[in-house]
Amino acid sequence: MTETPFTLDRFAAARQRIAPYVRHTPMLPAPLLHHDSPHGLQLKLENMQIAGSFKVRGAFNTLLSLEPEQQQRGVVASSGGNHGLAVACAAQRLGIPATIYLPATATPDRVARIHQFGVDLVTHGTSWDEAHARALAHAEADGLAYVHPFDDPRTVIGQGTLALELLDDLPDLDCVVIAIGGGGLIAGMAAVLKQSRPQIRIIGVEPKGAASMHHSLQRGFAERLPEPSNTIADTLAPRKVGDYTFALAQQYVDTVVQVDDLAMVHAMRWLWRECNQLVEPAGVAVIAALHSGVADLHGAVAPVAVICGGNAAAGSVFELYQQAIRS
Amino acid sequence: MTETPFTLDRFAAARQRIAPYVRHTPMLPAPLLHHDSPHGLQLKLENMQIAGSFKVRGAFNTLLSLEPEQQQRGVVASSGGNHGLAVACAAQRLGIPATIYLPATATPDRVARIHQFGVDLVTHGTSWDEAHARALAHAEADGLAYVHPFDDPRTVIGQGTLALELLDDLPDLDCVVIAIGGGGLIAGMAAVLKQSRPQIRIIGVEPKGAASMHHSLQRGFAERLPEPSNTIADTLAPRKVGDYTFALAQQYVDTVVQVDDLAMVHAMRWLWRECNQLVEPAGVAVIAALHSGVADLHGAVAPVAVICGGNAAAGSVFELYQQAIRS
Repeated sequence: MTETPFTLDRFAAARQRIAPYVRHTPMLPAPLLHHDSPHGLQLKLENMQIAGSFKVRGAFNTLLSLEPEQQQRGVVASSGGNHGLAVACAAQRLGIPATIYLPATATPDRVARIHQFGVDLVTHGTSWDEAHARALAHAEADGLAYVHPFDDPRTVIGQGTLALELLDDLPDLDCVVIAIGGGGLIAGMAAVLKQSRPQIRIIGVEPKGAASMHHSLQRGFAERLPEPSNTIADTLAPRKVGDYTFALAQQYVDTVVQVDDLAMVHAMRWLWRECNQLVEPAGVAVIAALHSGVADLHGAVAPVAVICGGNAAAGSVFELYQQAIRS
Repeated sequence: MTETPFTLDRFAAARQRIAPYVRHTPMLPAPLLHHDSPHGLQLKLENMQIAGSFKVRGAFNTLLSLEPEQQQRGVVASSGGNHGLAVACAAQRLGIPATIYLPATATPDRVARIHQFGVDLVTHGTSWDEAHARALAHAEADGLAYVHPFDDPRTVIGQGTLALELLDDLPDLDCVVIAIGGGGLIAGMAAVLKQSRPQIRIIGVEPKGAASMHHSLQRGFAERLPEPSNTIADTLAPRKVGDYTFALAQQYVDTVVQVDDLAMVHAMRWLWRECNQLVEPAGVAVIAALHSGVADLHGAVAPVAVICGGNAAAGSVFELYQQAIRS
């Protein structure tokens, strides 16, 4: 990275590029029902984004940045999670052929949702790493564009557009809490926020069972975790953050803290009681960090926690209601 | 009803009265992900209201309208559903003692949520009618205010404040689809909308298994259904609409249509895929009416469907995630 591609004008251009296709998601309208959260806290409900997470910002930005000839040939991606859903959604919307590689561990509800978008699905391997390697080989062999889930400037810049919405909606914004998986969201958002207003504090949150950013920050470079990930927050579970995302986090993120799985399940229940938002564990990692006390907002007057994704496994609820009809 | 208490100034006063305590809920930010809904449709996400439904508008309006001396003595209500939750929430917030009567059929998740607000709970009977009769007797014997779930001008006027938000947020509004249980929401909203702009069309939706408004409109007066209600949309299941709510619906509502339970479950799944909103069957009755074709928006350019409540039985989801940690 001799020259940074992460200047503010690029984020602004990306926002304009993807605007017709994504939602400007709402903040939770005040007041909060419960009083066990930091004073003045607002929640950015990115779980209400198209395809259920912020990932669609990077997916649209990447697909719309391709040359027309690349768009016609099609794209390849690998993800059994929110990135796969986002690329499938964007590809269908833009009429671009897409092949999504999934590990066999992808949950049935996410596979079904990706399938709905009419893209080609290939199951390979039992981890994202294996699906990723095969997908990359496919893309290179056929000369197709590979849409990386986090470590690509187009992806990072797409995700960072979320921060531009925060700056518009909350002029006093002074602290943001953001979950970390591969690091695309926090990297893009931190680049926008710190270049716009350096005094905004940025707190990253990762699962204890997949603390890949913490590990890399301690090492001083992006390094794979020695142990396999172990967390219910499957969309935060990459074993290695990206080179771009690591560099941006090192430069712009103030603190990275960790939460355990049980705290995330408690936070899921809290968010449901608070405003009837059912989200996946990754979506409430930020709430878990606030409630368990590891994320300290000391003195912040307009803090925001980003609820980054909502694709929980909700199938059992629909089953129960369907059974209630039969009986 | 010799003199109408439902003038626009009363709704405006109610809105101001309850503003510090309730949320101005968002519309679903466009664009829609799917293309199987009427063009231009927007969803008013009242499932994100405090305590999970519009009911808290009427509850706060009623409690705040009481004399200080009545507030000190406390209030009584009857409901195993969203009204009970709303009164409990408002009473706790305002420091007013409250006793809520529940039928034994109230679902465990709603009972647990009502209990959290620290009010007195009494279980009586196996239907809302029985709990209601006992609660009313208690209120009269002890000289306490009874907070009716729908058939009281203070309740109706509180619910109608939702329509004032729609008029503010959507200047072109020309059609609104609203679910009907006891009729409080549609009565209040219709009074506001038709007095403000008579050309706005208002379509009511009720479950086939509890079509109490349709029945009463045919009879020409509010009359109890001959058969017990039979629908999974338990919060839309009163066997008789109110005298106030009937009169307002007769005067102001253009059409009342019906949906079956299966269409509501399909609509629950649709809303989940569309924007990760998990809501109870009553909350998507309006979507079910649009998708099954019984609600026809012919020619509307800015139609809104009100997602009136969100308190689905979601416990199984949290259980699944909790089990995933243990394993």
